[in-house]
Amino acid sequence: MEEQVEMVGKAFVDHYYHLFDNNRTELVSLYQPTSMLTFEGQRIQGVDDISAKLNQLPFDQCRHVISTVDSQPSAFAGGVVVFVSGCLQLHGEEHPLRFSQMFHLIPTGQGSYFVQNDMFRLNYG
Amino acid sequence: MEEQVEMVGKAFVDHYYHLFDNNRTELVSLYQPTSMLTFEGQRIQGVDDISAKLNQLPFDQCRHVISTVDSQPSAFAGGVVVFVSGCLQLHGEEHPLRFSQMFHLIPTGQGSYFVQNDMFRLNYG
Repeated sequence: MEEQVEMVGKAFVDHYYHLFDNNRTELVSLYQPTSMLTFEGQRIQGVDDISAKLNQLPFDQCRHVISTVDSQPSAFAGGVVVFVSGCLQLHGEEHPLRFSQMFHLIPTGQGSYFVQNDMFRLNYG
Repeated sequence: MEEQVEMVGKAFVDHYYHLFDNNRTELVSLYQPTSMLTFEGQRIQGVDDISAKLNQLPFDQCRHVISTVDSQPSAFAGGVVVFVSGCLQLHGEEHPLRFSQMFHLIPTGQGSYFVQNDMFRLNYG
């Protein structure tokens, strides 16, 4: 059980940041109408608004380098909470930005997961 | 609804870190048998083991200074996910340590919340 949850978390994280860095418009497939994103304190709900936010960030090319992935089963049947730390390297910028992000994943019922909760923060200082 | 969730998150964060910094043994009251803590990658379950971990950390006096608190309703009825960033100042250490932490709070049914999921990471670099 523990190992399965860890595997779900790591597989999701690989998939999510691969899409983010290579095909960001495809991230929309991971959200549903109830999904919420809080990005640097700005709260956004629903597939269309989340997709618009992610695709209108003020940088195009970027690369996420993941430092840690922690996962736990959530109280919601079959859900998984995932807690990520890493660096975000923007194209043309010398210094990577440290970030933390959490996801609450809920089973779709078709063998995969969608993102119910997503909160992202840069770690300054 | 949004504001209520923000209020729950902020009130919990104030309470949690106040206890941590002033009366750490009392943190036990915020966990239940199903609770999980992942502390720097080490996963611990249940009130007794979580309490033991928190009270056996290799520092006594400390002070948390919170930078950001983000909260969202979770998929679990009445639950709240809380995402925190801040600094941990250890007694006698010159430089504070940056950290991130997430909590999944579940209503107890008696007007308060317990911590179902708790994940903590120091942010190095």
